[in-house]
Amino acid sequence: MLFNNVSALSLDQLIDTWPSTPWTFAEVLPAEFSPFILMGVLLSLITVYATSKIGGELSKRLDLPPVLGELVGGVVVGISALHLLMFPENTATITDSLIAQLVQWMGHLDADAAMRVFEGQSEVISVLAELGVIVLLFEIGLESDLRELSKVGFQAAVVAVVGVVVPFTLGTVGLVSIFHVPVIPAIFAGAALTATSIGITSKVLSELGHLKSKEGQIIVGAAVIDDVLGIIVLAVVASLAKTGEVDLLNVVYLIISASGFLLGAILLGKFFNTGFVAIADKLQTRGALLIPAFTFALVMSCFASAIHLEAILGAFAAGLVLDETDKRKELDQQIMPIADILVPIFFVTVGAKADLGVLNPMVAENRAGLIIAAFLIAVAVVGKLVTGWAVFGQPGINRMAIGVGMIPRGEVGLVFAGIGSASGVLDRPLEAAIIVMVILTTFLAPPLLQLTLKGSNVEMSSSDVLPATD
Amino acid sequence: MLFNNVSALSLDQLIDTWPSTPWTFAEVLPAEFSPFILMGVLLSLITVYATSKIGGELSKRLDLPPVLGELVGGVVVGISALHLLMFPENTATITDSLIAQLVQWMGHLDADAAMRVFEGQSEVISVLAELGVIVLLFEIGLESDLRELSKVGFQAAVVAVVGVVVPFTLGTVGLVSIFHVPVIPAIFAGAALTATSIGITSKVLSELGHLKSKEGQIIVGAAVIDDVLGIIVLAVVASLAKTGEVDLLNVVYLIISASGFLLGAILLGKFFNTGFVAIADKLQTRGALLIPAFTFALVMSCFASAIHLEAILGAFAAGLVLDETDKRKELDQQIMPIADILVPIFFVTVGAKADLGVLNPMVAENRAGLIIAAFLIAVAVVGKLVTGWAVFGQPGINRMAIGVGMIPRGEVGLVFAGIGSASGVLDRPLEAAIIVMVILTTFLAPPLLQLTLKGSNVEMSSSDVLPATD
Repeated sequence: MLFNNVSALSLDQLIDTWPSTPWTFAEVLPAEFSPFILMGVLLSLITVYATSKIGGELSKRLDLPPVLGELVGGVVVGISALHLLMFPENTATITDSLIAQLVQWMGHLDADAAMRVFEGQSEVISVLAELGVIVLLFEIGLESDLRELSKVGFQAAVVAVVGVVVPFTLGTVGLVSIFHVPVIPAIFAGAALTATSIGITSKVLSELGHLKSKEGQIIVGAAVIDDVLGIIVLAVVASLAKTGEVDLLNVVYLIISASGFLLGAILLGKFFNTGFVAIADKLQTRGALLIPAFTFALVMSCFASAIHLEAILGAFAAGLVLDETDKRKELDQQIMPIADILVPIFFVTVGAKADLGVLNPMVAENRAGLIIAAFLIAVAVVGKLVTGWAVFGQPGINRMAIGVGMIPRGEVGLVFAGIGSASGVLDRPLEAAIIVMVILTTFLAPPLLQLTLKGSNVEMSSSDVLPATD
Repeated sequence: MLFNNVSALSLDQLIDTWPSTPWTFAEVLPAEFSPFILMGVLLSLITVYATSKIGGELSKRLDLPPVLGELVGGVVVGISALHLLMFPENTATITDSLIAQLVQWMGHLDADAAMRVFEGQSEVISVLAELGVIVLLFEIGLESDLRELSKVGFQAAVVAVVGVVVPFTLGTVGLVSIFHVPVIPAIFAGAALTATSIGITSKVLSELGHLKSKEGQIIVGAAVIDDVLGIIVLAVVASLAKTGEVDLLNVVYLIISASGFLLGAILLGKFFNTGFVAIADKLQTRGALLIPAFTFALVMSCFASAIHLEAILGAFAAGLVLDETDKRKELDQQIMPIADILVPIFFVTVGAKADLGVLNPMVAENRAGLIIAAFLIAVAVVGKLVTGWAVFGQPGINRMAIGVGMIPRGEVGLVFAGIGSASGVLDRPLEAAIIVMVILTTFLAPPLLQLTLKGSNVEMSSSDVLPATD
């Protein structure tokens, strides 16, 4: 049992200091931490919402996408500045987390108990953030039009493939030839340059009302395919790092399961739609439409995760499928408040976990990383910008916007950095360089995307978009 | 660090078995459990929603309150039967939890890692359940009318005090004189008979469309006051159990802080309302109304928790205050989907954690408990039924309904049982008896309340109630 080491928190002490232990049913020991974990979660959520609103509104006033304000706000309250919203993976002691310290002080907890509570609260916030992207992608799926998406499907695939091959090649070759990095770490860093952050890009597109434009649909489609390609690249690189050779069988399995999943979801969609509407019509209790739809999104997320895809791909597919029903409008309306509550947790958390300390050139050990980082950022931007010119048969399309839309790397790049450094493939400067690249592409993309989309001359059904920027 | 004992899960193994570790930003070790915890949470949520819908719909078809179906459904999937939704406090090994086993199998986790994931997932579900009651009470507060509530405030207070004094006295005296239980455990068991479960009662009232009736408002008001009294009783009893004497200072502190909090919230309400509407009107990004309102509910919950009251009291007060604004209707609409998603987690979890094994008379050690339980149930029912006849100056009121509405004991009774048994005051039969009493009053109250309210001849603004039973 993990709780042995916290027996220092005696029951007497608990009764003494916290008479209102109450109300989780059947919570006997060892769940004595529950009220403190709840307190930590409540304080963290209050921080998240205050941050997201202040950041989002300021960003909006500066005529920038609100999500940028949420990200920057996250940086302000996170590891880089105020230390309000902290996570155990960023910090060794809870004295770094103001919320954890407050909870410890209020509950008179000893160090072990406080650490346990801190970990519990961070875990809850992390899962809520993950549910946030799941709901975001479900909403994006609901807003996307499957027929529109299929029309641009081939273009999206080309954009995705170009956007994986170019940065990977440029990055790997450049690192080896210019910086004399050994081949395997170079491949790892090159791989980290491939996957676009679908969450950030789609949120910005939605906020700008451009999700349904041709450019928007190509970007979202390409980002989804990109995500699948990223997972395959990760599998290849990880097996390379481990055994020095590529596990072809696993790669083939991933390709088949990913394509099978996405195509299967779409083909089964029509069949499922009829059943879904019939079920929703029969239900008589509250949430008759919402609960089956939300459960469907969770089932698809789970299923995607089980076959080693990303959970968010499942949620996106679920949204695409349900978008085809005539309940779509009603569902949109009901999902919106849930997204409003959960999605900010994701973006603020992303900002809070980004450690801008690696950007400080005054720290000697950062400098090597910063030079490599400058190179990686250049490759990251150029390697995705070119994808816009890979689009064909779409005269008058905003090629620049497509390229810019693919720039943000977000979370997947950091997973590469984390796995690479944990398995000893990446040294500290190269890992720091990847993190800097991810942070900068993530924060630069929203304003750049707004800039390139402004005055974009494409047809778009503006009446149809979500009131995301009202 | 808690993660030392799980180093058996090597990174290689992780890469090998789970290529899609992705997408929590900056998740390096020791957060390698995140994808598994997410998987466990998703599976648990799917179980919860399927259970709540099946149970709720069946209950509705049988013309019973849907929440009863959710509770019973929870029992079916929980510790008492299917072992799908389990919690570490109920079970020593994860082999008892089917979801945990599935996650372990999918992730090829070793026993320690699987236990860690199981605990993480349970913690998240428990916190989500707690957020569920918070949202429920916020919604109930929004539906309640402060002026109506003040009109019946004195009656509610009388009902609450009678409903605390009668069962406490009957229970304690009866246990000592009939069952020869020593005085301190008898006082403990008597105290466990006092607090009404505001969550269950208010949910049933809302489902029956009776929340705004005079009876409904008296019940809710009395349940809130009851909750405060329960916390005071708990503090008294806990200090009695600990030192053998009552810490009068703490009791006085609790009484003052509780009354101060509730009165202060209501008095400050008017002032806050104007400010709140002004802020919400100024915001331009998504969730302009919802996020400030939800954050306010969380702040009040936090504040209530910090002064040793229950978090749900804060959420209720927040709802009461915001009900006075002209944004009320819009807010109701937006909170509803959030409640639809979160509230079932609470009720299904309550059912899942209730171990009906203590009801089995074939187990010899249960029998002593069952006899005492029969006595406690009689006291629990009678002691609250009489409260209806304590109401005065309300001719034609449904006294029976008020008494029945106060019957369910829910979570607070279990907290008494848990603390009493952990501190060694309660022996096993007496603890089991309290648990049986809580389970039965919780499950009996919804159908009984429906029965007594049916054809109730009171005035009620039925146009105004939530479409809870549509």
